Amino acid sequence: MSQKNSNKKIVAFIGLGNMGGGMAPNLVRAGFQVHAFDLSAPALALAESQGCSPYSSAKEAVQGADFIISMLPNGDIVEAVYIDGPEALLNSISPSALIIDCSTVASASSIRLAKSALEKGIKAIDAPVSGGVAAAAAGTLAFMCGGEKGAYQSALPVLNAMGKNIFLAGAAGAGQIAKICNNMLLAVHMTGTAEALQLGVDNGLDPKTLSDIMIKSSGCNWTVEKYNPYPGVMEGVPASNNYEGGFMVDLMLKDLGLAQQAALASQSATPMGAAARNLFNLHKHSGGENKGGKDFSSILDLYRRD
Amino acid sequence: MSQKNSNKKIVAFIGLGNMGGGMAPNLVRAGFQVHAFDLSAPALALAESQGCSPYSSAKEAVQGADFIISMLPNGDIVEAVYIDGPEALLNSISPSALIIDCSTVASASSIRLAKSALEKGIKAIDAPVSGGVAAAAAGTLAFMCGGEKGAYQSALPVLNAMGKNIFLAGAAGAGQIAKICNNMLLAVHMTGTAEALQLGVDNGLDPKTLSDIMIKSSGCNWTVEKYNPYPGVMEGVPASNNYEGGFMVDLMLKDLGLAQQAALASQSATPMGAAARNLFNLHKHSGGENKGGKDFSSILDLYRRD
Amino acid sequence: MSQKNSNKKIVAFIGLGNMGGGMAPNLVRAGFQVHAFDLSAPALALAESQGCSPYSSAKEAVQGADFIISMLPNGDIVEAVYIDGPEALLNSISPSALIIDCSTVASASSIRLAKSALEKGIKAIDAPVSGGVAAAAAGTLAFMCGGEKGAYQSALPVLNAMGKNIFLAGAAGAGQIAKICNNMLLAVHMTGTAEALQLGVDNGLDPKTLSDIMIKSSGCNWTVEKYNPYPGVMEGVPASNNYEGGFMVDLMLKDLGLAQQAALASQSATPMGAAARNLFNLHKHSGGENKGGKDFSSILDLYRRD
Amino acid sequence: MSQKNSNKKIVAFIGLGNMGGGMAPNLVRAGFQVHAFDLSAPALALAESQGCSPYSSAKEAVQGADFIISMLPNGDIVEAVYIDGPEALLNSISPSALIIDCSTVASASSIRLAKSALEKGIKAIDAPVSGGVAAAAAGTLAFMCGGEKGAYQSALPVLNAMGKNIFLAGAAGAGQIAKICNNMLLAVHMTGTAEALQLGVDNGLDPKTLSDIMIKSSGCNWTVEKYNPYPGVMEGVPASNNYEGGFMVDLMLKDLGLAQQAALASQSATPMGAAARNLFNLHKHSGGENKGGKDFSSILDLYRRD
Repeated sequence: MSQKNSNKKIVAFIGLGNMGGGMAPNLVRAGFQVHAFDLSAPALALAESQGCSPYSSAKEAVQGADFIISMLPNGDIVEAVYIDGPEALLNSISPSALIIDCSTVASASSIRLAKSALEKGIKAIDAPVSGGVAAAAAGTLAFMCGGEKGAYQSALPVLNAMGKNIFLAGAAGAGQIAKICNNMLLAVHMTGTAEALQLGVDNGLDPKTLSDIMIKSSGCNWTVEKYNPYPGVMEGVPASNNYEGGFMVDLMLKDLGLAQQAALASQSATPMGAAARNLFNLHKHSGGENKGGKDFSSILDLYRRD
Repeated sequence: MSQKNSNKKIVAFIGLGNMGGGMAPNLVRAGFQVHAFDLSAPALALAESQGCSPYSSAKEAVQGADFIISMLPNGDIVEAVYIDGPEALLNSISPSALIIDCSTVASASSIRLAKSALEKGIKAIDAPVSGGVAAAAAGTLAFMCGGEKGAYQSALPVLNAMGKNIFLAGAAGAGQIAKICNNMLLAVHMTGTAEALQLGVDNGLDPKTLSDIMIKSSGCNWTVEKYNPYPGVMEGVPASNNYEGGFMVDLMLKDLGLAQQAALASQSATPMGAAARNLFNLHKHSGGENKGGKDFSSILDLYRRD
Repeated sequence: MSQKNSNKKIVAFIGLGNMGGGMAPNLVRAGFQVHAFDLSAPALALAESQGCSPYSSAKEAVQGADFIISMLPNGDIVEAVYIDGPEALLNSISPSALIIDCSTVASASSIRLAKSALEKGIKAIDAPVSGGVAAAAAGTLAFMCGGEKGAYQSALPVLNAMGKNIFLAGAAGAGQIAKICNNMLLAVHMTGTAEALQLGVDNGLDPKTLSDIMIKSSGCNWTVEKYNPYPGVMEGVPASNNYEGGFMVDLMLKDLGLAQQAALASQSATPMGAAARNLFNLHKHSGGENKGGKDFSSILDLYRRD
Repeated sequence: MSQKNSNKKIVAFIGLGNMGGGMAPNLVRAGFQVHAFDLSAPALALAESQGCSPYSSAKEAVQGADFIISMLPNGDIVEAVYIDGPEALLNSISPSALIIDCSTVASASSIRLAKSALEKGIKAIDAPVSGGVAAAAAGTLAFMCGGEKGAYQSALPVLNAMGKNIFLAGAAGAGQIAKICNNMLLAVHMTGTAEALQLGVDNGLDPKTLSDIMIKSSGCNWTVEKYNPYPGVMEGVPASNNYEGGFMVDLMLKDLGLAQQAALASQSATPMGAAARNLFNLHKHSGGENKGGKDFSSILDLYRRD
């Protein structure tokens, strides 16, 4: 275990999976001292090899830290780690520290964390990310933050070390809402683009020609321009690599589920988002094979007929 | 009636409504001699005041023309004017002329026109437009063309005088398919954007802040960036002008209907496009008022709860 | 060719496919003299073996007939056979005869046929059927008729020989509208029932128990009660026979397409019917196999995950 | 407060709202001694006037009871009343008593209640109802039960006093799943029927004639047959009473929300159920008026155009 280096700010990093494992080394490169923890020994060893200091428990990792970053799979785990579990971290974190939870969870979980932290005098923001594994490693993630403006500003040096577009969406939980609104719309784009391209192809058009037209017209969206779902239209995207890599169907389904839960709670109508969730769900199980691990642009397969 | 000016190419222009009335003067400005016809005397008089030569019948207008441009409301009228009507123009058009039909119609109508014209030795392309009344007047329309490459290239000088993005989508009818695929996707964008913004607002977010985040993220599409449906977010768009002007709900419904007809004919699945059509249809009649004349971004009203 | 038997009414029967081939013999059994025609020699031979008199052309078959029944695949064929084709039957049918078109076509086609017939002094009704191949053979079809009340009443003796529920839906074309409204709702039932049962199964319920509950509750519909899509729940239905037999996915898609065309023409919103059409279309092509020939209750497979 | 009458079984009844207030008197009529509790004094007074014994707290009401029936608004309240609240009833209920929770809540809540009860040696079943206020008062409710067979059988004398169709759907929570599957399908019926009838009307059919045809055809469902949404078609239903009374839009939205939560948890695709929820949500807020208190058949208004 490393000792406090008085010149460096300490970041405790909890959760070194596909995303967290790519993010933590960028903090090291930016001059932070990173106290890392994960339940997986190989993940911890990998982080150590990249300059992080491994800790044998989250409780130890957060002691003396200026920032606590967490990147965890879901809200139940986030709430257990900080609030409800036997080693509830809120009991070990210094009131002068700032919690930056980068997990994608329900906004209710983020709000509960911020409130519970505040009761102990600790500030917390939610900062879910957008951009995927490659952006995590490259330090080009987008962060959508929710919390007090002061806390957000304190977090900026840390977030800037890991990403390039950092947004303050509003109060606690607002980062989560911004992310699910954005990703719900992304899912609508992807299904809509897939079916518009396939409709063109079914009527004799070339998907590349049609995509080129859409890019310069009102049919332009992020997926047409940067992430075309039709194989062969664009190089370097999952569609031209058998839908490997990228943003998995299962992760999109998780985000669409969170969007639907938010819509149920606020009694909002989201007919297009609901339709998209159901299409991704049907796609996942179509053809007698679980496609949850494929890139989400593989939804095009649901529309193809060959 | 004007005489043939040997230095100028002659364009016969049939249909001087909101769109055609804006397009024809741009041809005059570009140096074409324009033989104009419309059933409406005021429309014809307006065209004359802008330098077009008025003709009292379509049959007379097309005589001696190098190009025939038509801008008509639907496929039945296009087929009547050129093929089936008592003054079927195909009987009066010179085999050396090129027909450029800019009407938005079913691709089957365009294919029939091209075929019937070819039987008389006349070339024809379909060239539906995108961009609306303002772009028609400003000469900044997009044209999505279907037909032979040679005919398309012959049309370019004329099309360039009226627009700025000119595409060859494929063979006869392909222009129509490209347009409905693009506009179906545009409708999906608009409904998806409206519901994503409203979901954010229902959960406490500011629509401007959320829009700014989406513009820089994977939730970006043409409507978020250039045509935001939320009142007050963007200046100079219909949403900030009580949804007046712009692209009418009724015209979007027409295009979505053509898209659904194409999908039925090719047995393509378009769940998102079909959902969008139904939402615009419900919107048109919601609240005890016909909203067909409002801008299509007014679909946001369907989601609002105040 | 048979001679006129003065004691018997003559029915000309055009179209002896799966449906017509089952219907015509029931007319023989009821005492009608049936003049049969089909382009298929085997179909004609089969009809002859069941007591019909075979004719070598539709034109000859209709001569002297009191009733003309047609059972044809689509509206283009119906219009060609009666109105537009080289042997347009309206030129050969006696003004005292009654045309009963049992084909399922767009109401516009039925209205055109009725109008064109009337111009020659001939009465015509549309009488599309419901019930499938088994009901055609058993003489238990339902007929949904459109036309004048007098013509409908004249048709009753013929229709009663082939079916058991005979309805007058309204004026010419109304039979077609009634049928597509009914079948669109049937498709909504089937997809809704499939997903409700699968949701129950995914949450631990037995599909038979859940079906029994629904049958006695507000979740009851014709498919739950008589045509359960879950394998093993009900005996004697396609779901318990690998989805063989019954009402094919392709035929349901045809009817859903006609319903959507009617909705486009009348600018009606049919979000559930449109969703159902798209789900059947996705189902048809899912899993790398064309399922158009399976019974329509096989839509359950789209929802299953094993 | 009444004393124990040795000849009568005691039922503690918690929650005397629109539903519970109608159910409790039926138990009195059937010979049970009913210990009633509600936070509302008028509700309690009304129950007393109908033969129930009023108690000033739930804790007192359950003491000595053989059965505890609860009819509460949502799962949070159910869990608070029995498990988490300051007067958690599980601490006061006799191990020989049987809990029958008739509230409509998430199956997870029912499962938690059953488990927590069992830890104290108490048996509990979930028994949500179907049928509405009128059926509650008339004693003709349907009960969909989840729990052990033995517990279910013990509950039958009580349930039979309040309803006529009693089902055992499966283990704990299964009653809730059966109810939401049934009600999701009911919502699909209602929206599908409304749009099918309106499509017919838009194409010239009479809604009564079309309904009559559907009732005898494959388009038959519970709403067509017993609860027609078109005004004037059927007497004695909310559609013929300005959509007053019946089953409120808000209650249907609650059940559709529970169905969607179950579908999210089990990753089930429910495209029709999701579409129905969104249509009811759009309907609730359409036309500048909150329609949550109207009968759910008022969804027809969303489709009408006059």
